[in-house]
Amino acid sequence: MTEKARIDVALFGAGRIGTIHAGNLARHPAARLRYVIDVHQPAAEALASKHDAQVASVEQALADPAVGAVVIGSSTDTHADLILRAAAAGKAIFCEKPVDLDVERARACAAAVSKAGVTCMIGFQRRFDPTFAALKQRLDAGEIGKPEMLVVTSRDPGPPPASYIASSGGVFKDMLIHDFDIFRWILGGEAVSVHATGGCPGLPEVAATGDISHAAVTLRTRDGALCQINTSRRAAYGYDQRFEVLGSKGLLQAGNVRPTEVVAWGEQAISSDKPEAFFLERYRAAYALEIEHFFDALVNGTPVRTTIEDGIKALELAELATRSWREGKALECAI
Amino acid sequence: MTEKARIDVALFGAGRIGTIHAGNLARHPAARLRYVIDVHQPAAEALASKHDAQVASVEQALADPAVGAVVIGSSTDTHADLILRAAAAGKAIFCEKPVDLDVERARACAAAVSKAGVTCMIGFQRRFDPTFAALKQRLDAGEIGKPEMLVVTSRDPGPPPASYIASSGGVFKDMLIHDFDIFRWILGGEAVSVHATGGCPGLPEVAATGDISHAAVTLRTRDGALCQINTSRRAAYGYDQRFEVLGSKGLLQAGNVRPTEVVAWGEQAISSDKPEAFFLERYRAAYALEIEHFFDALVNGTPVRTTIEDGIKALELAELATRSWREGKALECAI
Amino acid sequence: MTEKARIDVALFGAGRIGTIHAGNLARHPAARLRYVIDVHQPAAEALASKHDAQVASVEQALADPAVGAVVIGSSTDTHADLILRAAAAGKAIFCEKPVDLDVERARACAAAVSKAGVTCMIGFQRRFDPTFAALKQRLDAGEIGKPEMLVVTSRDPGPPPASYIASSGGVFKDMLIHDFDIFRWILGGEAVSVHATGGCPGLPEVAATGDISHAAVTLRTRDGALCQINTSRRAAYGYDQRFEVLGSKGLLQAGNVRPTEVVAWGEQAISSDKPEAFFLERYRAAYALEIEHFFDALVNGTPVRTTIEDGIKALELAELATRSWREGKALECAI
Amino acid sequence: MTEKARIDVALFGAGRIGTIHAGNLARHPAARLRYVIDVHQPAAEALASKHDAQVASVEQALADPAVGAVVIGSSTDTHADLILRAAAAGKAIFCEKPVDLDVERARACAAAVSKAGVTCMIGFQRRFDPTFAALKQRLDAGEIGKPEMLVVTSRDPGPPPASYIASSGGVFKDMLIHDFDIFRWILGGEAVSVHATGGCPGLPEVAATGDISHAAVTLRTRDGALCQINTSRRAAYGYDQRFEVLGSKGLLQAGNVRPTEVVAWGEQAISSDKPEAFFLERYRAAYALEIEHFFDALVNGTPVRTTIEDGIKALELAELATRSWREGKALECAI
Repeated sequence: MTEKARIDVALFGAGRIGTIHAGNLARHPAARLRYVIDVHQPAAEALASKHDAQVASVEQALADPAVGAVVIGSSTDTHADLILRAAAAGKAIFCEKPVDLDVERARACAAAVSKAGVTCMIGFQRRFDPTFAALKQRLDAGEIGKPEMLVVTSRDPGPPPASYIASSGGVFKDMLIHDFDIFRWILGGEAVSVHATGGCPGLPEVAATGDISHAAVTLRTRDGALCQINTSRRAAYGYDQRFEVLGSKGLLQAGNVRPTEVVAWGEQAISSDKPEAFFLERYRAAYALEIEHFFDALVNGTPVRTTIEDGIKALELAELATRSWREGKALECAI
Repeated sequence: MTEKARIDVALFGAGRIGTIHAGNLARHPAARLRYVIDVHQPAAEALASKHDAQVASVEQALADPAVGAVVIGSSTDTHADLILRAAAAGKAIFCEKPVDLDVERARACAAAVSKAGVTCMIGFQRRFDPTFAALKQRLDAGEIGKPEMLVVTSRDPGPPPASYIASSGGVFKDMLIHDFDIFRWILGGEAVSVHATGGCPGLPEVAATGDISHAAVTLRTRDGALCQINTSRRAAYGYDQRFEVLGSKGLLQAGNVRPTEVVAWGEQAISSDKPEAFFLERYRAAYALEIEHFFDALVNGTPVRTTIEDGIKALELAELATRSWREGKALECAI
Repeated sequence: MTEKARIDVALFGAGRIGTIHAGNLARHPAARLRYVIDVHQPAAEALASKHDAQVASVEQALADPAVGAVVIGSSTDTHADLILRAAAAGKAIFCEKPVDLDVERARACAAAVSKAGVTCMIGFQRRFDPTFAALKQRLDAGEIGKPEMLVVTSRDPGPPPASYIASSGGVFKDMLIHDFDIFRWILGGEAVSVHATGGCPGLPEVAATGDISHAAVTLRTRDGALCQINTSRRAAYGYDQRFEVLGSKGLLQAGNVRPTEVVAWGEQAISSDKPEAFFLERYRAAYALEIEHFFDALVNGTPVRTTIEDGIKALELAELATRSWREGKALECAI
Repeated sequence: MTEKARIDVALFGAGRIGTIHAGNLARHPAARLRYVIDVHQPAAEALASKHDAQVASVEQALADPAVGAVVIGSSTDTHADLILRAAAAGKAIFCEKPVDLDVERARACAAAVSKAGVTCMIGFQRRFDPTFAALKQRLDAGEIGKPEMLVVTSRDPGPPPASYIASSGGVFKDMLIHDFDIFRWILGGEAVSVHATGGCPGLPEVAATGDISHAAVTLRTRDGALCQINTSRRAAYGYDQRFEVLGSKGLLQAGNVRPTEVVAWGEQAISSDKPEAFFLERYRAAYALEIEHFFDALVNGTPVRTTIEDGIKALELAELATRSWREGKALECAI
């Protein structure tokens, strides 16, 4: 690789996910972290210092012509604005999901990206998880024939604070947006009907926010394939991320990942490890691989696998599911 | 046990399931097979001869005061009539599901049973499956707290002939009736909403009968617990009967049963047996245990665990699901 | 089947294993339990009464020309005498392992059986276990090529009373005799060297009997295949009966059997059932299948799969292993 | 961390394992790769260039007072000489196993290390494998009581070239040296007896080198704990690295690691991934963790967990096992 290929990067957000991205892009030969931007100055400084980068303002970072790409890992309400500004500045964009909680605003971002002609990748990291990606590859290779039915289990270890939930956009935009992307990716088609229902069994503090903690969603594609997603904001045994797809010739299951392969045979039972604790552990490899993919795409001029259109489609499904739940009815759609 | 405890039995139906029941009741110390009744005479004769019983007509069998109980394993369209006649004759009744395809007629049976004061057990054998029963016992013991979400996977290895499907009452009454019973049994509450959808991906021959081969059902209980059931009439890997229930303190899974515990490590993969081939194999122990339970209940004067009311509740859910699917909407209900 | 095919049976031993055999032979259409013989009269009476059989003395049972077969499930020290007398009386013989603790005496039994020309089957029930038998069948079908290495794990849940151990013939004849049979059956060849060692870690009460509780045996066949057996008289998690065989093209594992397929996901771990509690549960199917095989062989005039020669070969290995352990050296042999 | 803590490193060997170590030490904040030394100059240059290090001769590297540590990943026959020279130069040493094929020479290295007072760690990376380390920790925490029996399965996917085998020191020094270390580490005691046997079933090309491809080793500790190790140079299903330890209160198993958690349910079987392909994949995390441990120990002045004494003890066991196999007898020992 020649020096010309080096891409300077501005990272927005120095929190948990920003820190992960900083570490991963440091390992890519083409990427160099140049600026860290965060409203919380000490966090920005600590992260910048660790990677020999500089703290900057949004304006400074986007004004620097040396910056080729931005990585947006700041809070959800900043995504759309940063996408618009980065697109206007001609930077390649990697942005965490969701594009925005508002579909119209998200569409405006997509239009701006399209007009600017910049690369924009949305961080649906699950598509890069080695287990999920291997399943997808085997599915595409025809191992189980045509997919007919997808069952997704997606549960968090415990609910976030009520204040977070209240401004999260609701469980469908906050949690299930990933699962809607899985649905589109695995079944390879768009939804023609959506039904969602839910409640807060055992979690009145979530009910108090006007959101639900447990949801059950059903989708049907134009081809007649079915998808059921079940979610909860609490699973006593940890972070649960599985799916399985039935095809005409068999079934492919993607299971959880365990920290170790120790099995204990005791007086009561035979037991193995719980799944990896939460998303930072479960998707450690996926986060590395998505960043690698983004910079590889920039270097090679190839398209990214999770576009801003994917982000919008998932958001639209989240919105429809929210409506379906609120109105208590199944919705026809043509996404 | 004294001689007085011996119960003479009339068995209706000498087909696959009748043969199973005959073998199982032969093992119960209190039961003695006296009559076998089947429209197909050679089948009745073969089974009767094997168990030192006699072939009889319905009239003869029900007229014999020595007969204390009937086991109904004949075709679905005969169930209601036989229940009514057996109740009128004061016989204890064990009847395969469904009571009838028509809910009204099934209710009439329940009324007749109630009026006659006879014991009537419906053959929801899955409740007696050692794995399912152990899970239920642990759930009731509080191992995972209060149940919040149930996911049921229920798939047949392959579709029956179109002629069978056409007169089966549809997938919800024919296949899912068992799963509706599982829903009521595991979540311990009745449904307040039902949503069903489905299709025939890859199975146009099922579509031609006006039925569907793949279904996705969502139920919600008064307590806010959720249930998702996914079904298909075809699974290339065999008979798939699993469920898992999430509670506030954990998850309990009931898995498939394998013929053997052989694991092969080969050049391509590590592989184990497919599930037991079909219901006769999968529920072999359950069929024996339900019959044991029925005769134990008769001998001890204790109630049966799966009553005709259970049969009607499951049937009502099947009917609602059918309507939901046909009308394309979620239904409120108060079952 | 005609009446002529019916074989009347005398059962020696009305204890645990005798009771199992009585139940199983009752299910075989060709077998009829006629006599039960036990030094403990009440046990004999209870078992005989349950099966409409009669209590008899050894003399009476063997003198009855109607008796075609004997099933020997009495204590080990009676086996040889009963085999000799049954052979002399021309009866077909099913005998629990071991033939005798003394190899010479066992050989005398084999000679008597051979001279009398009667069928004699030794109860190596493990060969009939569905999992072990399926593995053997796949091995013979060439699935993993030629077997090269066998690893056997064989552990009891807890040690028997010291008094039992003291007269058991030692761990190699009492427990490992089954594993030596597995070795011969799976690798399909005889041993050319035997090494055994062991001790009593944590079980001084076993050491006090002069026996060992934990043993490690290594065998090598003429073909160069290796076998390692590890045993202990105590496993806190229950009865452990596994083996795996490495071949040139892969590995076949035979695992334990669990009572149910429930899996619990809890706050600490994911856990499944311990193995079946002990041999009566683990080998329930095997006991039924070996008795079926014995009577099928008698009815059809076909050879039995576990002969008295197999019993002697296993006993010779147990004796060699005992010597190897006592003398602290590997032994060459030509069994 | 202050600048003073930075340790410059000379890396001997730029092959597969050297490349791994270079990558891992680059991630440690205290380590800086300064020199790469390899008889194959282009390999040294490529690796040095990748890490901004310099190619050097052994003399140059050891003469540089800035070099605080050496990492020895060159061929086995160079280990002893490099340890002696590095010790003489006062460098901390990380060396791949084995110290040397000759026990006497290895002891001379240990003496030199001891005299020089330098840190010397031997690369028994398996102790750092997350699964193995977690098992060890739980064992030490008393989860299964006192260990009584260890069963180790250790198999390579396929044999190396005959030329490699011929100069490898034999299977016991080449492959099992790791397993002997596992034995000492897990059972926490030294051997009082060793028995080894083996052969070359199906691999005459290995027999031609005078070595064996399949080995079965049995060890007994002073405490009476037993260990069985089974090895082969070929496993059609891949790299197999498992062990399980029985204690007075249960069993702990350390299983293989799979690339993904995909499970396929097909028409023939249910299958999951084979184990990770070979040691570079299986022990990827372990290699990183052992290097981290080495530099942490240097920085903090704490002892290393796998010392040169551990290397010698494992080598002595390998030598005893070789003798036991050659002489066909069990050996008493007092290691």
